[in-house]
Amino acid sequence: MAPPELSLPATDADRAALRESRAQHVGQKPGTLTVRPGAPTPRLFLMAYDEEGCDEAEYTGRYDELLEAIRTAPERKYWLDVRGYGDLPLLERIMENFNLHPLQMEDVLGDYQRAKVEVFDDNRLFMVSRMTEFTESLEIDDDQLSIFTGPNYVLTFQDDYQDCLEVLRNRLRGPSSQLRRRPIAYLAYALTDVVLDHYYPTMAAIGDYIEELEDSIFVARRERRLLSRILQVKKSVVRFRRLVYPERDKIAEILRLPDEVMPEEIKTYYRDCYDHAIQALDLAESYRDNISSLADLFLSDQSNRMNEVMKVLTIISSIFIPLSFVVGLYGMNFQREDGHGHVMPLNMPELYQPWGYPALLALLALIVAGQLYYFWRKGWLSSND
Amino acid sequence: MAPPELSLPATDADRAALRESRAQHVGQKPGTLTVRPGAPTPRLFLMAYDEEGCDEAEYTGRYDELLEAIRTAPERKYWLDVRGYGDLPLLERIMENFNLHPLQMEDVLGDYQRAKVEVFDDNRLFMVSRMTEFTESLEIDDDQLSIFTGPNYVLTFQDDYQDCLEVLRNRLRGPSSQLRRRPIAYLAYALTDVVLDHYYPTMAAIGDYIEELEDSIFVARRERRLLSRILQVKKSVVRFRRLVYPERDKIAEILRLPDEVMPEEIKTYYRDCYDHAIQALDLAESYRDNISSLADLFLSDQSNRMNEVMKVLTIISSIFIPLSFVVGLYGMNFQREDGHGHVMPLNMPELYQPWGYPALLALLALIVAGQLYYFWRKGWLSSND
Amino acid sequence: MAPPELSLPATDADRAALRESRAQHVGQKPGTLTVRPGAPTPRLFLMAYDEEGCDEAEYTGRYDELLEAIRTAPERKYWLDVRGYGDLPLLERIMENFNLHPLQMEDVLGDYQRAKVEVFDDNRLFMVSRMTEFTESLEIDDDQLSIFTGPNYVLTFQDDYQDCLEVLRNRLRGPSSQLRRRPIAYLAYALTDVVLDHYYPTMAAIGDYIEELEDSIFVARRERRLLSRILQVKKSVVRFRRLVYPERDKIAEILRLPDEVMPEEIKTYYRDCYDHAIQALDLAESYRDNISSLADLFLSDQSNRMNEVMKVLTIISSIFIPLSFVVGLYGMNFQREDGHGHVMPLNMPELYQPWGYPALLALLALIVAGQLYYFWRKGWLSSND
Amino acid sequence: MAPPELSLPATDADRAALRESRAQHVGQKPGTLTVRPGAPTPRLFLMAYDEEGCDEAEYTGRYDELLEAIRTAPERKYWLDVRGYGDLPLLERIMENFNLHPLQMEDVLGDYQRAKVEVFDDNRLFMVSRMTEFTESLEIDDDQLSIFTGPNYVLTFQDDYQDCLEVLRNRLRGPSSQLRRRPIAYLAYALTDVVLDHYYPTMAAIGDYIEELEDSIFVARRERRLLSRILQVKKSVVRFRRLVYPERDKIAEILRLPDEVMPEEIKTYYRDCYDHAIQALDLAESYRDNISSLADLFLSDQSNRMNEVMKVLTIISSIFIPLSFVVGLYGMNFQREDGHGHVMPLNMPELYQPWGYPALLALLALIVAGQLYYFWRKGWLSSND
Amino acid sequence: MAPPELSLPATDADRAALRESRAQHVGQKPGTLTVRPGAPTPRLFLMAYDEEGCDEAEYTGRYDELLEAIRTAPERKYWLDVRGYGDLPLLERIMENFNLHPLQMEDVLGDYQRAKVEVFDDNRLFMVSRMTEFTESLEIDDDQLSIFTGPNYVLTFQDDYQDCLEVLRNRLRGPSSQLRRRPIAYLAYALTDVVLDHYYPTMAAIGDYIEELEDSIFVARRERRLLSRILQVKKSVVRFRRLVYPERDKIAEILRLPDEVMPEEIKTYYRDCYDHAIQALDLAESYRDNISSLADLFLSDQSNRMNEVMKVLTIISSIFIPLSFVVGLYGMNFQREDGHGHVMPLNMPELYQPWGYPALLALLALIVAGQLYYFWRKGWLSSND
Repeated sequence: MAPPELSLPATDADRAALRESRAQHVGQKPGTLTVRPGAPTPRLFLMAYDEEGCDEAEYTGRYDELLEAIRTAPERKYWLDVRGYGDLPLLERIMENFNLHPLQMEDVLGDYQRAKVEVFDDNRLFMVSRMTEFTESLEIDDDQLSIFTGPNYVLTFQDDYQDCLEVLRNRLRGPSSQLRRRPIAYLAYALTDVVLDHYYPTMAAIGDYIEELEDSIFVARRERRLLSRILQVKKSVVRFRRLVYPERDKIAEILRLPDEVMPEEIKTYYRDCYDHAIQALDLAESYRDNISSLADLFLSDQSNRMNEVMKVLTIISSIFIPLSFVVGLYGMNFQREDGHGHVMPLNMPELYQPWGYPALLALLALIVAGQLYYFWRKGWLSSND
Repeated sequence: MAPPELSLPATDADRAALRESRAQHVGQKPGTLTVRPGAPTPRLFLMAYDEEGCDEAEYTGRYDELLEAIRTAPERKYWLDVRGYGDLPLLERIMENFNLHPLQMEDVLGDYQRAKVEVFDDNRLFMVSRMTEFTESLEIDDDQLSIFTGPNYVLTFQDDYQDCLEVLRNRLRGPSSQLRRRPIAYLAYALTDVVLDHYYPTMAAIGDYIEELEDSIFVARRERRLLSRILQVKKSVVRFRRLVYPERDKIAEILRLPDEVMPEEIKTYYRDCYDHAIQALDLAESYRDNISSLADLFLSDQSNRMNEVMKVLTIISSIFIPLSFVVGLYGMNFQREDGHGHVMPLNMPELYQPWGYPALLALLALIVAGQLYYFWRKGWLSSND
Repeated sequence: MAPPELSLPATDADRAALRESRAQHVGQKPGTLTVRPGAPTPRLFLMAYDEEGCDEAEYTGRYDELLEAIRTAPERKYWLDVRGYGDLPLLERIMENFNLHPLQMEDVLGDYQRAKVEVFDDNRLFMVSRMTEFTESLEIDDDQLSIFTGPNYVLTFQDDYQDCLEVLRNRLRGPSSQLRRRPIAYLAYALTDVVLDHYYPTMAAIGDYIEELEDSIFVARRERRLLSRILQVKKSVVRFRRLVYPERDKIAEILRLPDEVMPEEIKTYYRDCYDHAIQALDLAESYRDNISSLADLFLSDQSNRMNEVMKVLTIISSIFIPLSFVVGLYGMNFQREDGHGHVMPLNMPELYQPWGYPALLALLALIVAGQLYYFWRKGWLSSND
Repeated sequence: MAPPELSLPATDADRAALRESRAQHVGQKPGTLTVRPGAPTPRLFLMAYDEEGCDEAEYTGRYDELLEAIRTAPERKYWLDVRGYGDLPLLERIMENFNLHPLQMEDVLGDYQRAKVEVFDDNRLFMVSRMTEFTESLEIDDDQLSIFTGPNYVLTFQDDYQDCLEVLRNRLRGPSSQLRRRPIAYLAYALTDVVLDHYYPTMAAIGDYIEELEDSIFVARRERRLLSRILQVKKSVVRFRRLVYPERDKIAEILRLPDEVMPEEIKTYYRDCYDHAIQALDLAESYRDNISSLADLFLSDQSNRMNEVMKVLTIISSIFIPLSFVVGLYGMNFQREDGHGHVMPLNMPELYQPWGYPALLALLALIVAGQLYYFWRKGWLSSND
Repeated sequence: MAPPELSLPATDADRAALRESRAQHVGQKPGTLTVRPGAPTPRLFLMAYDEEGCDEAEYTGRYDELLEAIRTAPERKYWLDVRGYGDLPLLERIMENFNLHPLQMEDVLGDYQRAKVEVFDDNRLFMVSRMTEFTESLEIDDDQLSIFTGPNYVLTFQDDYQDCLEVLRNRLRGPSSQLRRRPIAYLAYALTDVVLDHYYPTMAAIGDYIEELEDSIFVARRERRLLSRILQVKKSVVRFRRLVYPERDKIAEILRLPDEVMPEEIKTYYRDCYDHAIQALDLAESYRDNISSLADLFLSDQSNRMNEVMKVLTIISSIFIPLSFVVGLYGMNFQREDGHGHVMPLNMPELYQPWGYPALLALLALIVAGQLYYFWRKGWLSSND
């Protein structure tokens, strides 16, 4: 989602950071804006569009020109996309010009804000969405997209230069874009929808990985710490659910907004979003079940392998220990004759028979055969459990 | 439910497909209709009926004639059944002629839509039901039935040529069909009811399979990977519940519809459906409990088998290891005489007794008897746990 | 609850039957009455009562006379009890005469209907209760009691000739019965109450059985498949809860009925029923907890037994294997003299000492003593874990 | 809580009794009063108080005088405490004189009634509280306190002579008691509060016992059946929760009563009770968690002990079995010379070396050292896991 | 959070104390104030502030002067902070002067009160917050902060001299403090917010500890009783959740207060608090999941180690037991010649071959090689599972 030099420290480190930054926050005035050190400098992108067409330009470092551009053509619709938080004074100017509440701005810049929607003055909306990605380290990496709507503009904030919104920009650029004809609220909807649609590739990646795990569970020489990978994926699925639940609630809240804030026409589209969110949750739930089953399978297989080890030990010991006894028996040194040349006929007469050794070998073979039959009947000689 | 050459890729593959298709969807305009590649070309079936009788015909490839047929006899009731989505322009024409919303049409064509009901203009309804089947691979295969109601018609969409609605068609064809006398809303109800009734064969198949699993758990040489089959069935039961819960909610929502949208007379029938849905869920819940118990039994039995292996090992080792020691003892080479012909009487005098060997054998027998008695008292000699 | 030749196929088979019958039902017109093959022929019992007294008679095969009897004395109250469903035309006549809805009649005749209450025309009620019994095969056997109330009658349907309502009949027959003075709605209440009261013997049987299981868990030679019995009882308790929950909900719904349908005076009594239902559920919940604990105990005990097996093996092996090594050592054939008569003094000089053997025995005894001390300190020599 | 000769049969036996008595109840007219055989004869205690002071007397056997005493001074407040149910006719007279409903009286005399509150005529209240005690047999013993309020009296019923209300009586008797100045509803509140306060000693006893269990889990020679004690305490905690939940709900219901039934002034006090009930539940919840953790620890420790047993076996076997092989090797009887005096130099030349035996001993020592090093590196030689 | 000589006895001891003190409470008049013995003597701190500046002074022991100070400048805003409860008469005077309810005061002094908010006369608020700390003994140590708001003052009570509010005091002292310009209700909010912010360092400590546990689980020689530490942390996380849930509910209740009690302007800030509380709960939930996974991993690893022990035993036993048999075989004393000089050629002819011993060694090597191959194929020779 972002080149390493720019990206937010992700996942576990992420949450560690959250804890840290919150901890530093203690006792600060609420609404105090702070930016994490090392945040990339903001880049400003403006797309100005109407039914006729769409002009886009980067105004990075030229914020005043940007304001001027918007002021001169108030009849057009604007999407102002701010990427990177590394310039606090600039952000404060934006906050002032677009009349944003410091607490909202704090939510924008903070390390972690659940998906939510807030209505503020003049029926303007503040929405937070979270964009997700399933990383190589089996974690959910999520970035925040903050959306403010105004009468003729949508203002978005992201911490990264990279995002998943390019598809939407292309739709705006397209020669006969429906999107350009719709009211500005539709653009906010479209942003929410694109983020939601992006949950599916995340799910797809998780789903594929689960299938991979399923395949590797019964492999003879299975990888070490397979269980920790299983549990790591479980953690990610659980985290994903926690990200999507507020998303669903956010959309439900949008659907309950009065019609003057959110026109019925747009709500129809959000209803569709709602269905998608429910489906994503459904999928996440069934992934969670699958992973629990996987862990059960793993543990049962572990126990199975132990069983097999024990069976090998038991079979070999059970066969050879009695044999060893028998041969030990005939290794005893009971004397045939006392010191005076008298034969003691009771002492191990077997040793003095011409057929003694062959008979003994036959006896041993019999013992082995008997045991093998017993184990075969128990089903221990087949390698499965 | 469908011959293999036509059927949707089912179950796991299904869901993989869902993820894929959703993933491709990213950033598309909502309401954009797409059809999965390889969908069968649509076949159009029209049943026109009134109290007197029922005419049916296939209009595949003759959509205009079909429209004409409906237009010429507006006093009759119609069931137009579209099977197969392989012709997008045709579907768009139907959408236009019957005044369907693109988002609804997207739900029809999409890969997975939970059961739901939506009211749209003129109190017309859009309903989604899911038809289920328990496959040989122990998965739930489900197909979607999309139903639109109009003043004098019901319009259904399915992706497959095969379906479970033949019983209903026969009732329409029947000489003195009650169904033909009822309002058109009753036909929509009847479709929902047939789908719901079809859950029972699915449940029956699952139930039978669970009983089969129950029987095979204590079998001596039980099949390999029994647990993965148990967990697979659990997955299916859980999936089934997830399919039926929205169905129940859908019907509950229908029952809450105002009387002008859904007449009280028809609601009485839906109330019956509601009971059936609850019972299907009840059954599914008890299946889930049963399967959990099965898994517990499996694991306990696994541990039991280990116990038995260990007991055999313990009994044989415990008996023969001491014996081996004793016979080893008398295999030692302590000398009776020093190099100078003096007898050393303390060195293993037992070896020089005439009754030494028989006495030893008796001792060994005694040891064995003692141990057997000990194990018998512990209950280890009986094969059960 | 019923002699075997008449009873419904019970429990597991029952549910199998449910699945079957539902499966056959597919596509049938809702409200189509079908009776399972082999249902006993209906017997008709009529109790006519008023404050003065109670007349009862069996009208089996004389349905017209029964109707006549009711018609001629409309000022009395009637309890018409239909037992057995084996005559569909008769049932249809009753349905018609008493003005019952086909869907309700379908619920009466169906294989399984959860407890419920429905109000239909003229404030008449349709109630379903389920009578339970804990069978020898550790399952819950339940029969359905369907109750219709009318202005001066209560109409009940049961599939069996046997039932648990005799106590109520005796109260009606009693010389100074309060019951006869109450309105007819009170009779319906009394029927519900008797069925609810019957849950306690069922619970008592389950409770006794659980105590029996508790006693048998630590027995040395415990029965085979104890766990499957434990899980079977759990299944029954869970099933019982599923039967009683709808019963509770039914009564709660009765309590919410408007006063013209259910007079406040009778509601007071239902409130009492509600308490009983809650208590039955409470008891069932605590049984479920107990059984879960039982299963845990079982598994821990299983593991304990394994531990004991292992300890025996370990103690015996640990003691004798070193001993065997020592005696094996002195069974080696290192030569004291080379072929030329020279003594090789380093080769096993122990064997040539006059005190060699006793010293060795002492050494062995010392080893044994040391190990026993070690095991005793570990607490392995006591038989408990 | 009560001397053994008088107390209700407690806990498990209690519930068995409940099942029994309910079972006998089947078909009885609701509101039929029955008293368990062997109930102690009722003792009647009357406390008459007003702002000036408090007179108390026992009227056992003099019920008419008691009524007279109340009638003659209607301006005072009364607490009539009936202990013991062994005289049904007397109880029926009380029921009549104080105008109690038979169903309520049935709840008083029944074996088990959850905490509840009911409003009956003239805004009078019927409340049930349950007094708990943690017994030596690790069970929750609970007795019922039934409270009726009237315009100038509170009427309480208990089955036992002993109770936990003495503290309250002392407050009434106190020289400058606030309690005597408050309205009669406050006395009912104070009763509820005392019972609730009594939950804490119960919890304290359970908590202490859990700590004791925690200490005994890692003890080397731990008691037999520790797990069954753990599970028994769990049962009690679960039972306690089940007793307190209705208590909380009861108080919540009291708080929702209209002000004319329960004055706002008294509600303030009940709000405090509510907090206490919540805290008791909180404590119970955390006890339940603790006990679950205890059970997990127990099982893990069990498995740990097995591990240790196995390690001892493995170390000893692994060391001595190879040694035994080596010494067995040199115990073989391969002949150095054939029958004709020819030396066969390949047959066990080691046995004929002057340094053979010392070299072998050195080899054995090396093997042992190698194995010990291996086990030490694996960490098996330290006794912990 | 507090030096040991002053702090409340914490955590487990804490709860034990709660049980004790509650137990002693039994039957006391509600609203009776008691202070635990050994509570530190109260210190009184007053901060008087307005837009211009902030004066602060300690009035310990000079309560009358404090009251005078407040009375003389009623236009200023005051924060009176009472730390330590060791002087009951003083507390009762404060209660009287500030018109607090005895039950509220009891909540202040009691050992444990969940976070809550209560509105009392004149729209004044009583709020309880709990300040947390994660101690070295892996427990959650929590102290209570009780807040009363008045028209121009905020009154706080704490049991300790130390607290986490210094950051807030510094904000008040700051030269151009926003805080001083806001209404007094904002100060109460700020106190709540600081406490909430303090949850994050607690979470951070727990989170770090969990990561430490994660690292130590697969270490070869892992610490003894790792599982009890894991479960102890789980207990703390569960306890933390229990502390924060009421906090969240408290804030939700504040948000529902009517605007005259809590102005909309301040609610905006509480809404921010609400988000933080939700996030803290979210984090706690995911910690709980992580710890459960840790416990699973621990148990699986335990089982894994057992597996490894067993494999070593099996490999060594399986290799050497057969070898021992073979060498035992050739240690038998079957005689080559009978007593009369006749050769018995069947008796162990192998012993008389010139190549006997080398052939046997070759045979043994072959056996070993075969077994090693078998074990290698099974994957038992690699050290992972």
